[in-house]
Amino acid sequence: MRYTRLFGKTSKTAPHDADSKNARLLVQAGFVDQLMAGVYTYLPLGLRSLEKVKGIIREEMDAVGGQEVLMPALHPKEPWEQTGRWEDPGPEVMFRVQGRGGKQYGLGWTHEEIITPLAKKFIRSYKDLPFAAYQIQDKFRNEPRAKSGLLRGREFSMKDLYSFHCDEEDLDRYYEEVSQAYLRIFGRCGLKAIVTEASGGAFSKYSHEFQVLTESGEDIIFHCPTCGYAQNREVSEYRAGDKCPKCGGTMEEGKAIEVGNIFRLKTRFSEAFGVNYTDAAGSEKPVLMGCYGIGPSRVLGAVVEVLSDDRGIIWPKELAPFSVHLVLLPAKDEGVTQDLITAADALYQELRDHGIEPLYDDRPDVRAGEKFTDADLIGLPLRLVVSERLQAEGSVECKERTAADALIVKRDDVLGEVQRFLAD
Amino acid sequence: MRYTRLFGKTSKTAPHDADSKNARLLVQAGFVDQLMAGVYTYLPLGLRSLEKVKGIIREEMDAVGGQEVLMPALHPKEPWEQTGRWEDPGPEVMFRVQGRGGKQYGLGWTHEEIITPLAKKFIRSYKDLPFAAYQIQDKFRNEPRAKSGLLRGREFSMKDLYSFHCDEEDLDRYYEEVSQAYLRIFGRCGLKAIVTEASGGAFSKYSHEFQVLTESGEDIIFHCPTCGYAQNREVSEYRAGDKCPKCGGTMEEGKAIEVGNIFRLKTRFSEAFGVNYTDAAGSEKPVLMGCYGIGPSRVLGAVVEVLSDDRGIIWPKELAPFSVHLVLLPAKDEGVTQDLITAADALYQELRDHGIEPLYDDRPDVRAGEKFTDADLIGLPLRLVVSERLQAEGSVECKERTAADALIVKRDDVLGEVQRFLAD
Repeated sequence: MRYTRLFGKTSKTAPHDADSKNARLLVQAGFVDQLMAGVYTYLPLGLRSLEKVKGIIREEMDAVGGQEVLMPALHPKEPWEQTGRWEDPGPEVMFRVQGRGGKQYGLGWTHEEIITPLAKKFIRSYKDLPFAAYQIQDKFRNEPRAKSGLLRGREFSMKDLYSFHCDEEDLDRYYEEVSQAYLRIFGRCGLKAIVTEASGGAFSKYSHEFQVLTESGEDIIFHCPTCGYAQNREVSEYRAGDKCPKCGGTMEEGKAIEVGNIFRLKTRFSEAFGVNYTDAAGSEKPVLMGCYGIGPSRVLGAVVEVLSDDRGIIWPKELAPFSVHLVLLPAKDEGVTQDLITAADALYQELRDHGIEPLYDDRPDVRAGEKFTDADLIGLPLRLVVSERLQAEGSVECKERTAADALIVKRDDVLGEVQRFLAD
Repeated sequence: MRYTRLFGKTSKTAPHDADSKNARLLVQAGFVDQLMAGVYTYLPLGLRSLEKVKGIIREEMDAVGGQEVLMPALHPKEPWEQTGRWEDPGPEVMFRVQGRGGKQYGLGWTHEEIITPLAKKFIRSYKDLPFAAYQIQDKFRNEPRAKSGLLRGREFSMKDLYSFHCDEEDLDRYYEEVSQAYLRIFGRCGLKAIVTEASGGAFSKYSHEFQVLTESGEDIIFHCPTCGYAQNREVSEYRAGDKCPKCGGTMEEGKAIEVGNIFRLKTRFSEAFGVNYTDAAGSEKPVLMGCYGIGPSRVLGAVVEVLSDDRGIIWPKELAPFSVHLVLLPAKDEGVTQDLITAADALYQELRDHGIEPLYDDRPDVRAGEKFTDADLIGLPLRLVVSERLQAEGSVECKERTAADALIVKRDDVLGEVQRFLAD
């Protein structure tokens, strides 16, 4: 992608109204645009990274047997009345929509009220169980304060998985399987997530949150750095300095961002909608359910909070919108020659011919300093620089975003060097 | 995919409340579930086909230089007031959403009000033009009558492309380029679309619709079968039997489904938001815009209306959720033997090992007649049958959905036969 053609550009100054580090960096680097508080447009760079998060989630959900579906955002009132959630939490959380003839709809902030009656249509006997279905879809919440960039949106993307089981043992088995899949997802996104005990609601002692430690986090957790045991402050019996109940280490307090959560719903929704199955002995029993959420947009925001420095974003390889930032570098006060453009164009083409699409800063009239500032801000993993000086000696500069120093690589070895870096 | 594990199954009877052929077939075959009038859940089969439509559209939009973005569904009131469309058409088309403190939002049914101010942030001079951005995103319309299945939804998927140009000549060039891309898209989806002149609004004499002739269509067009010239009745100066103004052939009247439309917006929105550029001579001029829509869900509905018979859907290869329907066939009154299951499982595995994921009807206890009825209803392009009788002679039955007769193929030749069919 040629930077001169790219829709969405970096800006020289940080947005004055950015409500968080992730919003500031993502807006300034040209990844997203804020339409209003908690509502963002994804520009081409941002959408590419968002789709990579979704792709990782999709792979791991498919690997645990999740079947992808797509449910609507516009919901009828009736199933929400049936569970009592039309009124509580009601409009505090759910946006209400005005239809014709006074008809009211809600905008989905979760989908138990949709998937449970749907699953009921296909569940007869124990032979139909277990199964799990998920979707990646945009959700809405009537947030009182939407002031954390992509971390807390009024409209945000969500992966929600729902599982259906014959008994508690099978639910527990799958719950643990999904928990492991979640750790793989966050790991691939470059995040170290801590499995944290949190409020389980009426039906379970605990649910589990996946928390990422960072100063900008809105949650407080107590966690043991030795064995990884953690509890959300909301349910915790511990304080900083207490002995870890699991390993005897010392519990610490930390701010964290919740990037995912998993719940044993058990029969909370299957009973509300009468979802039963016939067991092998012929008796009718309620189906047990679990639900499992990750917000891809929130993950993206968390990645930027955690993986960035004072120069900009530091994308992990799996999420970078492009792997390589190719920079055509003007000589000081002289601009670029046609020969240099030809050399940079040739490298651009060579990489593309080998399936590596770089972001190509082909601006002929922008100085080196501004180009490097932009490259650091955008934060792609590998930067290649084609300059007059290096061109004369048949070389290209090659620098990882996280490295202090650049390598000088012979022009003929550049493709190999890039391929090695990407395969690492 | 094993049919016994699939979320969403065929039903023996057509839904009593289906409002159209596409809804009846898609619900009965287990592709979608109706949540309420004009609002559907996509089950795994339906989502796979919907994603294939989106994939084709994405490829063709990328090929004409469109850059993919993702805009929100939840819109602030202000830009809609600025164009006058908050009041007209207002709530007749746009759902209104109730926020906190009496704040009102709208749900997006189109995105000129969002993309135009956004583009303004990045357009300075003629060097920034032309460019085009598109999204594939769910839209909402406060439809008075949502009674045509996927053809007219209250919530529906939409691809909307917006282009930005220096002058009318460049807009016209791109308009024609997109028109050709649209014909490629519909062709790949198995639809024969007729480019039809329609109302152009205040700024152009005509816009163009892409109409597919079918008895269930809600539009009336007059078209010339000889040269393909067509007009929507709403603007037409012709009637059936009139001479075609282009080729002298005879105009015919037909019912049709609109599957896409393209508009020269010219300066309608750039003037409302003050989107100007500086030309090479240094003077400021308004940007010209075009917009181009295709609804992937509507395309799916149209495909089912047009490509189906009294037994079920007839998926074109590019849109089928799976290419191959593998059927394990019980012998009459005897059920299946373990040997037969082993043979069918082996063929299932062989196909998967070669990158062909079949839908595998592995039900051991369902009769041949019901299995064939289901296979015809679901409508995958190629059906393979493993039966006791054919197994004895080392063969498999191989039948195209559109063919009258089946072929008997030697077991060892089945993979090659399937690969040949798919490559055709």
